[in-house]
Amino acid sequence: MTISMYQSCVPVFINNLNNLSEILKKAANYAEAKKIEPSVLINSRLYPDMLPLVRQVQIASDAAKASVARLAEIEVPSFEDNETSFDELQERIAKTIKFLQTIKPEQIDGKEELKISYFQHGRDRNFIGLPYLLNWALPNLFFHITTAYAILRHNGVEIGKKDFLGNA
Amino acid sequence: MTISMYQSCVPVFINNLNNLSEILKKAANYAEAKKIEPSVLINSRLYPDMLPLVRQVQIASDAAKASVARLAEIEVPSFEDNETSFDELQERIAKTIKFLQTIKPEQIDGKEELKISYFQHGRDRNFIGLPYLLNWALPNLFFHITTAYAILRHNGVEIGKKDFLGNA
Repeated sequence: MTISMYQSCVPVFINNLNNLSEILKKAANYAEAKKIEPSVLINSRLYPDMLPLVRQVQIASDAAKASVARLAEIEVPSFEDNETSFDELQERIAKTIKFLQTIKPEQIDGKEELKISYFQHGRDRNFIGLPYLLNWALPNLFFHITTAYAILRHNGVEIGKKDFLGNA
Repeated sequence: MTISMYQSCVPVFINNLNNLSEILKKAANYAEAKKIEPSVLINSRLYPDMLPLVRQVQIASDAAKASVARLAEIEVPSFEDNETSFDELQERIAKTIKFLQTIKPEQIDGKEELKISYFQHGRDRNFIGLPYLLNWALPNLFFHITTAYAILRHNGVEIGKKDFLGNA
């Protein structure tokens, strides 16, 4: 067993997206039990100019599929950001995981020095494979999954760090 | 440049603890500018039974030093959890980074199959080096740093994802 670029992203992303899926199931159950309109949770945010739960989940999905596709040098799959229910957010996560599962280790391994360039949010982004993975892709995914968790925790959903970490 | 166990934790942890330090500086400046008692932010939490900012920072420190020490097979440095001000939280982060900087690549590299066992929160924990790093140590650190960020964001501190990601 030797650490590799593939192992440090694809299985990690799948694992954490599965944990996010379980957290969202608890949120959906909580909404049902407390007779809370699910859209209240889905549109909840921690501050007026911060993104709501739905966007945190969509961006977690985007962060996972985009970074893996860029490292694999294939086209980033494009998903419409049109989810409005917990079921639809679950589908979004499931199709993200399904994409990640198509990636083979040989598409990512050895990409430590890959030049990655793309245009996003009005500017050119330029990265090198290894720092892109460690300083951008991983923190970015965890940022959005933790923020989704924090929004739900703030709304009273009974989740703890063990839900975030899953079966680690 | 080849990915390694050391590269995937020590510099990543130092980088993200530095980003946390910058976020806390912005929080301290915000408290001063708005004439908010700093302890209000330091003791703020997102839900009554969730840990406050001070504990998020202390646990981020603990998560970093403990996981690196365990991978390096040295004693985990013990810090008192007695911080009550932003300056003291900065000192806590600085001494955590100072410890991480003493770790040499050869102490961590090749530890993919290391058996890690310790007793925590009333139970035995058993891990193997690589999954410990990828599924426990990294997510755990990002969880607490993002939660610290979310608490401050919820309290109006003007920070964005670029502060969390730093100069990635």
